[in-house]
Amino acid sequence: MITVLRPGVSKEKVVSLVDWFENQGLKVHLSEGEYQTIIGLIGDTSKIDADMIEVLDIVECVKRISEPYKKANRKFHPEDSIIDVGGVKVGGGNFSIMAGPCSIESEEQILEVAKAVKDAGANILRGGAFKPRTSPYDFQGMRDEGLRLLLKAKEVTGLPIVTEIMNAEHLPLFDDVDLIQVGARNMQNFELLKELGKTNKPILLKRGLANTLKEWLMSAEYIMAGGNENVILCERGIRTYETYTRNTLDLSAVAALRELTHLPVIVDPSHATGIARMVEPMALAATAVGADGLMIEVHNNPEKALCDGAQSLTPDVFAKVVAKVEKIRDVL
Amino acid sequence: MITVLRPGVSKEKVVSLVDWFENQGLKVHLSEGEYQTIIGLIGDTSKIDADMIEVLDIVECVKRISEPYKKANRKFHPEDSIIDVGGVKVGGGNFSIMAGPCSIESEEQILEVAKAVKDAGANILRGGAFKPRTSPYDFQGMRDEGLRLLLKAKEVTGLPIVTEIMNAEHLPLFDDVDLIQVGARNMQNFELLKELGKTNKPILLKRGLANTLKEWLMSAEYIMAGGNENVILCERGIRTYETYTRNTLDLSAVAALRELTHLPVIVDPSHATGIARMVEPMALAATAVGADGLMIEVHNNPEKALCDGAQSLTPDVFAKVVAKVEKIRDVL
Amino acid sequence: MITVLRPGVSKEKVVSLVDWFENQGLKVHLSEGEYQTIIGLIGDTSKIDADMIEVLDIVECVKRISEPYKKANRKFHPEDSIIDVGGVKVGGGNFSIMAGPCSIESEEQILEVAKAVKDAGANILRGGAFKPRTSPYDFQGMRDEGLRLLLKAKEVTGLPIVTEIMNAEHLPLFDDVDLIQVGARNMQNFELLKELGKTNKPILLKRGLANTLKEWLMSAEYIMAGGNENVILCERGIRTYETYTRNTLDLSAVAALRELTHLPVIVDPSHATGIARMVEPMALAATAVGADGLMIEVHNNPEKALCDGAQSLTPDVFAKVVAKVEKIRDVL
Amino acid sequence: MITVLRPGVSKEKVVSLVDWFENQGLKVHLSEGEYQTIIGLIGDTSKIDADMIEVLDIVECVKRISEPYKKANRKFHPEDSIIDVGGVKVGGGNFSIMAGPCSIESEEQILEVAKAVKDAGANILRGGAFKPRTSPYDFQGMRDEGLRLLLKAKEVTGLPIVTEIMNAEHLPLFDDVDLIQVGARNMQNFELLKELGKTNKPILLKRGLANTLKEWLMSAEYIMAGGNENVILCERGIRTYETYTRNTLDLSAVAALRELTHLPVIVDPSHATGIARMVEPMALAATAVGADGLMIEVHNNPEKALCDGAQSLTPDVFAKVVAKVEKIRDVL
Repeated sequence: MITVLRPGVSKEKVVSLVDWFENQGLKVHLSEGEYQTIIGLIGDTSKIDADMIEVLDIVECVKRISEPYKKANRKFHPEDSIIDVGGVKVGGGNFSIMAGPCSIESEEQILEVAKAVKDAGANILRGGAFKPRTSPYDFQGMRDEGLRLLLKAKEVTGLPIVTEIMNAEHLPLFDDVDLIQVGARNMQNFELLKELGKTNKPILLKRGLANTLKEWLMSAEYIMAGGNENVILCERGIRTYETYTRNTLDLSAVAALRELTHLPVIVDPSHATGIARMVEPMALAATAVGADGLMIEVHNNPEKALCDGAQSLTPDVFAKVVAKVEKIRDVL
Repeated sequence: MITVLRPGVSKEKVVSLVDWFENQGLKVHLSEGEYQTIIGLIGDTSKIDADMIEVLDIVECVKRISEPYKKANRKFHPEDSIIDVGGVKVGGGNFSIMAGPCSIESEEQILEVAKAVKDAGANILRGGAFKPRTSPYDFQGMRDEGLRLLLKAKEVTGLPIVTEIMNAEHLPLFDDVDLIQVGARNMQNFELLKELGKTNKPILLKRGLANTLKEWLMSAEYIMAGGNENVILCERGIRTYETYTRNTLDLSAVAALRELTHLPVIVDPSHATGIARMVEPMALAATAVGADGLMIEVHNNPEKALCDGAQSLTPDVFAKVVAKVEKIRDVL
Repeated sequence: MITVLRPGVSKEKVVSLVDWFENQGLKVHLSEGEYQTIIGLIGDTSKIDADMIEVLDIVECVKRISEPYKKANRKFHPEDSIIDVGGVKVGGGNFSIMAGPCSIESEEQILEVAKAVKDAGANILRGGAFKPRTSPYDFQGMRDEGLRLLLKAKEVTGLPIVTEIMNAEHLPLFDDVDLIQVGARNMQNFELLKELGKTNKPILLKRGLANTLKEWLMSAEYIMAGGNENVILCERGIRTYETYTRNTLDLSAVAALRELTHLPVIVDPSHATGIARMVEPMALAATAVGADGLMIEVHNNPEKALCDGAQSLTPDVFAKVVAKVEKIRDVL
Repeated sequence: MITVLRPGVSKEKVVSLVDWFENQGLKVHLSEGEYQTIIGLIGDTSKIDADMIEVLDIVECVKRISEPYKKANRKFHPEDSIIDVGGVKVGGGNFSIMAGPCSIESEEQILEVAKAVKDAGANILRGGAFKPRTSPYDFQGMRDEGLRLLLKAKEVTGLPIVTEIMNAEHLPLFDDVDLIQVGARNMQNFELLKELGKTNKPILLKRGLANTLKEWLMSAEYIMAGGNENVILCERGIRTYETYTRNTLDLSAVAALRELTHLPVIVDPSHATGIARMVEPMALAATAVGADGLMIEVHNNPEKALCDGAQSLTPDVFAKVVAKVEKIRDVL
């Protein structure tokens, strides 16, 4: 880490800062130039809070040479991580298609959709039991009962399942869930991330509504620092000024994460756009940019869905999308 | 709620949507114009998920005439709410100044700062025990021990205290806390909000990093719908493309919330800007725009602070800010 | 256009608004519901300023049923427009690859790059003569002389050329330019757009830094309303809070514009990301999402470039990208 | 300027970069640390394009110690600049209130409003003749004729006038205009800025929709570098994800600019919010934060205004706002 001091700062202040750094167990390399002094820090600077240093009045800027994330960092783990989700490999060249309804509504519905997406080529079943809703008056999901139905669909189809957790206290209910999703709104729910770090469950960490790539990787680091390195990242659109689509799908994030981390990155075009007819083009683009998989909403009767209906595809349309995605995969 | 349909939609689809609305217990008022059909909904539409309707392919747009938040809505509660925080009234003309360190570091530190801010005119003491940090390697706060020290400072100074909760499981530790803060990152941690709704504790709900006023009020509604109407809103800056300040303090939100809700709104210029020398001007502006209070970071030794040091004021500077704030209050 | 009035507005105000609408030559269809009154407008509402109506205190919301852009609107022009750029067709299934240096630096440089990109498969040559720079002290381009060299490269290679205009007074210099580029910073330079609307030159209209799809189409409408319908849109990334890439490439815009307009849409992954190694994945994604072409920076010696050097590809890398792009085109 | 190189870069690449810097006439100070090499540049680095250097693959980061703006920089011009606008001083403690209609509609209207705002305490008259409109079909202003009417109002009331220019070719028409406004959409219309730099007219430079403080100051620098140092900055709200107000007024920008530049900074609460009833609170906040003046829309008949009607105040309301603003000024 390099700390560039402002020109003409008092000797005392420099000394007190250097002391502070050394007290943190770091080796300090001071280079006093004609115009400014630069403090180079050698050692494990990941414990140093760069923001805190940067706002000191004697400091011009702070630059980390090594990113604060270690376990998620490709530098220290060059080869792709491959996460085993109930027997299905994700990452390292293994492309995964997670599909299913936004919300589980009934046994008939989830079984029907599960079979349909399996036939269409999905290898992981998704379905929401605990639903984060902006309004306390909106449908909150079938919760425990929904999980029970999802597990039944797993049993019937043999597909591993992914579903969202909103509360660490619910963990016991997730014993047979193959991939636990952390939603965008909980990306920085650090207490939840710490609890998930204590499990050995694969975690699907969605990007927060307005979080940077670095913040996202730091949240993955929370889980990994706890001992659970089975993390899959999911880009689902960020909040911008543009309102035509629900969010703005940031596909450059996929290309960037390829360099920054060894963790698999999948893309959710359904939630990102909120518009069913935009799912296909965005799914193809996500595949072409190099994503490790897709998460797509499929519903047996979109127009009757209790939630996000019209961003869902019918099984037939989904099957067509999968076929095109596979063609693009062949080209790459 | 009004649903405007696209021109030339099929009769069947209109009927099936109308049926669906009626099944939700709503009275439907259909007005078929030359160019488009409009469905007016009468009854409690707060349970209807407008997003879900808007994305249906037959729908042009959906407009709520009544906002989905009821309890937080000034329309149904015209007079200002006044929240009692350990004997200190907030809102309805009562201006409150919450001050203290970002993090509690030691008994000596918190006691010294507590006395200093009380002398300078603060009427509520703030201090962080559980700290949400972007990095798992950054200082996470003194946690339980920090709370113990904060309660001691309360005892010594008689000031009510406000501190952040990150996990509903910690609630028992907050029995003697006068105002429980929900941080920006947890503004949409709905499970936490529901638990706080079951208490009768005053809650300080900070605005999320990139949340709209409506989403913020819906989060307040989560707490209020649970039975706890003691909610204070805190504007702390939103994320924009501008990087000069840590966040962009949105003071127009204060003026807007004045119309939309009866809940008190305070402003935190310290976290919003992240720069100590910008706290005074932003505090004065927040007062002039009509905020019900301020939350300001004060530290006995800013440059040695373990966290957010340089965004803290010294007690002397803080005292000067309070004096100017009071002058502006007199003018209004 | 539909105007929904607030509940309980005075009869007089409604009448005065209705009068005003009728004075604009519109037929008014008033529907007074139990809860609110809705004014439907029939006729050419494109001249009505919805913003102005929406902020009236008696108005709840305004919704256009017909978009304010007519000539750019696919509704009134279902088939794709095909723009002829010096003999090269763009749009309607014709994929175009525009490549060349960010800035023209010398005759040797532009000729060398022009030949290289032609050999690699580009069908239009790009090169900057007039450069918009944030700083008055940065290199402003070779201007007139640069244009002369670009025209020479056109002559030598036979490739049509595209280059940016910053001032309508320079139009005479652009007589032999095949495609005139309007940069992001001038997307709402309406005086310039009006002048370009008087020409019959193909115009490449880049999206503004923070402009919506609707604003972008309205800017295209400025050119088309003047009589020049030869407009090509270019997505080049929008400004968001994320700083890892220079801008955030919004590929969902391409999918959305496909529905909204008949104009061709191309993508510039070089400026969007500002990072050479991200150009390939974003170019492949842009192709997969259905763009009508790409604009890519190629430089014979990236590390010595006077401008945006490291976002440029070498001719060899560019050739490889083109080959992969063509494979994806074959799949679609 | 400091350039930090990536660890382990090849000697040759470092040498070629150092050569390049020296060819730019800079003195290079190389400090090779154990972990990385840092290049310090001494001399006028304002001509160096930091972006270009930062993207080079051997470069970790670039940090300017001296900002690229010189003439606008408070460092080199500590005392506030005071701009003389037709005899009215702006800046350096002189508070200016610019008021008038968004658009000039008729002689009667502009004269009536001009007298009203003068009586209410405005010291500069504003009125739009050339109007930048998103739609080519919206009212574009009375243009030349509007200017003529505005000059008549100046003659009658003796108030200096401010109005927007959209095209450098119109400059001759602005001979008797006291303050020439550059609108948000033209903030980076560099060709226009250069032309204004050749005049000696006071320029009111509005902040672009999504421009940083640095970009804004660089645009001021364009005008000043041309020899015209009479620049006044105007904050008018930035584009964010929040749609409740038209834009988000960034008052922290005023506090920040106070440190960064000696130029006066005024605030336009009318365009920022787009809502008349929010003008007063935001005007008071802008005054409290230390703005050098306000620009407020006043209309004799808001609900009939052709443009931005409901964001205008009536003369009476405006008079009340001015009175409160003056009370706050007294306190500061």
